[in-house]
Amino acid sequence: MSDFVQSLERGLAVIRAFDADHPEMTLSDVAKVTGLTRAAARRFLHTLVELGYMRTDGKLFALRPKVLDLGYSYLSSLGLPDVAQPHLEKLATEVHESCSVSVLDGTDIVYVARVPTKRIMKVMIETGTRFPAHATSMGRTILAAQDPAWLDSFLATTTLTPLTSRTITDATELRAELTRVSTQGWCVVDEELENGLRSVAAPIRNQGKVVAAVNISTHVSRPVDSVHTDLLPPLLATAEAISADLTASGGTLGR
Amino acid sequence: MSDFVQSLERGLAVIRAFDADHPEMTLSDVAKVTGLTRAAARRFLHTLVELGYMRTDGKLFALRPKVLDLGYSYLSSLGLPDVAQPHLEKLATEVHESCSVSVLDGTDIVYVARVPTKRIMKVMIETGTRFPAHATSMGRTILAAQDPAWLDSFLATTTLTPLTSRTITDATELRAELTRVSTQGWCVVDEELENGLRSVAAPIRNQGKVVAAVNISTHVSRPVDSVHTDLLPPLLATAEAISADLTASGGTLGR
Repeated sequence: MSDFVQSLERGLAVIRAFDADHPEMTLSDVAKVTGLTRAAARRFLHTLVELGYMRTDGKLFALRPKVLDLGYSYLSSLGLPDVAQPHLEKLATEVHESCSVSVLDGTDIVYVARVPTKRIMKVMIETGTRFPAHATSMGRTILAAQDPAWLDSFLATTTLTPLTSRTITDATELRAELTRVSTQGWCVVDEELENGLRSVAAPIRNQGKVVAAVNISTHVSRPVDSVHTDLLPPLLATAEAISADLTASGGTLGR
Repeated sequence: MSDFVQSLERGLAVIRAFDADHPEMTLSDVAKVTGLTRAAARRFLHTLVELGYMRTDGKLFALRPKVLDLGYSYLSSLGLPDVAQPHLEKLATEVHESCSVSVLDGTDIVYVARVPTKRIMKVMIETGTRFPAHATSMGRTILAAQDPAWLDSFLATTTLTPLTSRTITDATELRAELTRVSTQGWCVVDEELENGLRSVAAPIRNQGKVVAAVNISTHVSRPVDSVHTDLLPPLLATAEAISADLTASGGTLGR
């Protein structure tokens, strides 16, 4: 395809080659991880150093904070975090639990705003963290709002990987659960993403269309009754407030 | 320079052309903002759509959440947020104020971890947010630890832009303040970044070298005495705890 700029694909692959297990790499390491020739890897690394996205001591290469500007372009263009954050902070203060907002990207949810309080998850959750949509309360909340043809295709093509012994992995069972979520307007997931984790989510709408979800994470030691009595009312109020502000702001999210 | 991959520079510029004021753009908009020809802009936009970083309805283009993966590569390779976040959460719970960690990038500080509680800043602070180092408590904390030659060059080449009527804009005055900060081991900044904002910061060290800073933001209505009595001891303890964990983790930050 002549319209495809392979150099851009390769340069982005060089950035993504770095992670917690590969914070610093030599030219040879980068060539190996990306499958590029040494000559090509050298050109991309030097370009990224030149542009301020990477640093090197001549031997080892590492990413610089400017890489965050790229993700910031997305978050800023989304408009959602700006709108959601004050409401999330208020909710977290009220319920004393971590609260988050996610959007759907393919078969994953991606966190776009978060106010952490108690640490329940084993995994660190940053903006940009992904989890499989089918096993999370925010994911099911967004999936439940999709049109039937889209959902048929999602269920036909997505492997419902179990993340704990309780994860729903049967498409028919998941579809029944999504119908229930759609009817009741919120979603609880118990220990399907991680043992010990109970989470409740509600939809965020832009001009009536579900474009994101907001949740509260808690521990299974909090009884389901308390989730219904203490967490659900402020969660639903927060989802409504974010939806109203998002619609009023003319945000492009989900348009 | 033959080693420079211009296509990568241009592709990254296309991503960065999108922001809160330009969440969706046509091909012509992108060409105008980036200075590319329409033909070049089309190739980069189509490549980004193909790679999943962008979506289009055929006319308007917008970024997709996958762009966050790029910033995530940096944060993940840093190791610092993982190490700092539990300590930040504990600190925020203890002092009931927003707490953050930043690193220095050029003349800016860049936020790499944050636990928001009360909203004091007018600006939304996401991971990746930048402020001029000279006007912030975290920036001065990191600047104060740099070697004299580096600091001379910084002060000779950086415009000390006033952000409020109280911002120090005189290089000699700033140097005196940095010496004081270096001696006392922490830094308070009052309303030099934003009116109403008082902030106190302490250095984070990796193997003895200052590589980042942690701060607590509060309102000027909290007396300076209370900053010294109530905020400084837990802040210093947090800075020590993060430094110890960072050093123990063998993190590459600042190496």
